[in-house]
Amino acid sequence: MDAKKCQAREHEEKGDCIFCKLANKELDTALVYEDKLVFAFLDTSPAGVLAGHTQVITKKHYSDITNCPEKDLKALIVAVKKIAIAVKKVSCAQGINVLQNNGRVAGQFVSHIHFHIIPRKQDDGIWFDTKRRNPAPMELVETAKAIKEELKKES
Amino acid sequence: MDAKKCQAREHEEKGDCIFCKLANKELDTALVYEDKLVFAFLDTSPAGVLAGHTQVITKKHYSDITNCPEKDLKALIVAVKKIAIAVKKVSCAQGINVLQNNGRVAGQFVSHIHFHIIPRKQDDGIWFDTKRRNPAPMELVETAKAIKEELKKES
Repeated sequence: MDAKKCQAREHEEKGDCIFCKLANKELDTALVYEDKLVFAFLDTSPAGVLAGHTQVITKKHYSDITNCPEKDLKALIVAVKKIAIAVKKVSCAQGINVLQNNGRVAGQFVSHIHFHIIPRKQDDGIWFDTKRRNPAPMELVETAKAIKEELKKES
Repeated sequence: MDAKKCQAREHEEKGDCIFCKLANKELDTALVYEDKLVFAFLDTSPAGVLAGHTQVITKKHYSDITNCPEKDLKALIVAVKKIAIAVKKVSCAQGINVLQNNGRVAGQFVSHIHFHIIPRKQDDGIWFDTKRRNPAPMELVETAKAIKEELKKES
């Protein structure tokens, strides 16, 4: 994980994107899937104990979900489904996490949109501590109203 | 979280789906978005400290990503993008996690496909412990080959 972060940061400091280099085949990778818009490869530092942790990326460079065009997003999620089914079979996984992080604070270490496909089994050591809380009903009402108003501005 | 799990399990034991009941408006919820295929509402036990943790679901019942039709998946991810942008603005988040769990072992407690949109900020207490490891290169080569073969069978 640390080695990967460093590698990613080194590339970013040089002003280029390691995922673009992978998609352009300037760097070697364990390719699992490719189409016109999408490229997918195995994570070299996979999560948990099962083999098959895959990264699914756009061939074009978009930093995250907020600026990725709908056409590319649709191609990504269709590929994610296909690969998730294949990874589950190959790894004999009991479950799959699909995770897409946006922003360094959310765990995104390469600023090129990517979906993680992580095969899961019981007691694999992976743990998502989501620190749940129980807000007052009024928080939910006011937040929902604010999001709906923001969505109206977007459309 | 525990209360929610119990509520979900109670519904499943009765042979019905709580997310179908929400989408059919048989139960009240803090609705944020709705179209022909998609329904989105605030999580009543949000993760972290920011308001805006949203669940985005299909209106029809599919248990997870492996059996959700492409048409519905595409509609889901387009809605996830729109809502993520709105949630980020409303919550002044520094980042966003998009998380889609498949199978109880992967943290899926309602067997109806859903994407979590979780707004993030520094030191919000959320932690994804992904237990990274460094496999031998041969593992990656052989796993990639097996996944590609499985994808050929699917197509």
